Amino acid sequence: MDPKAKQVALRKLPYGLFVIGLVDGDKVSAFTASWISQCSFDPPQIMLAVKKGSNGLAMIQASRRFSVNVLGAEQTEIAAHFIQQRPQSGNRLGVYAFRAGERTGAPVLEEVPAFAECQVKQVTPAGDHDVIVAEVVAVTVRRDVKPLMLQDTAFDYYGG
Amino acid sequence: MDPKAKQVALRKLPYGLFVIGLVDGDKVSAFTASWISQCSFDPPQIMLAVKKGSNGLAMIQASRRFSVNVLGAEQTEIAAHFIQQRPQSGNRLGVYAFRAGERTGAPVLEEVPAFAECQVKQVTPAGDHDVIVAEVVAVTVRRDVKPLMLQDTAFDYYGG
Repeated sequence: MDPKAKQVALRKLPYGLFVIGLVDGDKVSAFTASWISQCSFDPPQIMLAVKKGSNGLAMIQASRRFSVNVLGAEQTEIAAHFIQQRPQSGNRLGVYAFRAGERTGAPVLEEVPAFAECQVKQVTPAGDHDVIVAEVVAVTVRRDVKPLMLQDTAFDYYGG
Repeated sequence: MDPKAKQVALRKLPYGLFVIGLVDGDKVSAFTASWISQCSFDPPQIMLAVKKGSNGLAMIQASRRFSVNVLGAEQTEIAAHFIQQRPQSGNRLGVYAFRAGERTGAPVLEEVPAFAECQVKQVTPAGDHDVIVAEVVAVTVRRDVKPLMLQDTAFDYYGG
């Protein structure tokens, strides 16, 4: 398969950028993700691809829950911040304040316009990632703003 | 969960619009899909949610292969055409000419700018859909154009 054609074709799929919030016992973490889509209307479920061997995947498999923090179009710096793991200090993860989501305890960032809390239903292997199917059990919308798109940033997590 | 908040939050996930091409024996079909994302770099794999009980899901489960036809931003009418099943007549599905993809035999539309051929690896239940994880085994790019986005159309297949 021609690598350039593969990249051009796969880059026709659009992505957002989201911060996935994780909790397991007293450990809290977060990572930036883009490979996510709704996959069911009733009940509302989403599918999310998470890198094999990552701390994020281990925490999701252990706790079976996570949050999806929606980023606004102006919040590229939050996406960039959580590309690497950030230490928790009190109510902050790295430099961003969070609180525990009411339904799952997964961290939700104070600055984001909207977030969902999710319970894991299925984990399926998929090459160098696992596909997590999870039910959306709670949502909060603080501000109805234009979301951040992967294609509008300098990030490169697709098509490679 | 507040239905309006659920809809607003879930609509922050961006989608394209694609025509999934199906073959099973001498039967050929196609349907319009939007819930699709890459899920692995190496090997290249995608995840696709397909409605339970649909003809498309039955054909994918039987044949374990399909094509993903990328639509250009100006090809809304092709997406609309394949929202319902269209009869095959010679080398046409409905009004659009197709040919058999070289690797899978799944139909690829002559007018689309790019397409991928896929082999199914896993099928996972996900509420009112199934999640198909499939490997991209061949890609063809005819023209590198801006893809059609669900959010740019009047279609409504998300967030409900």
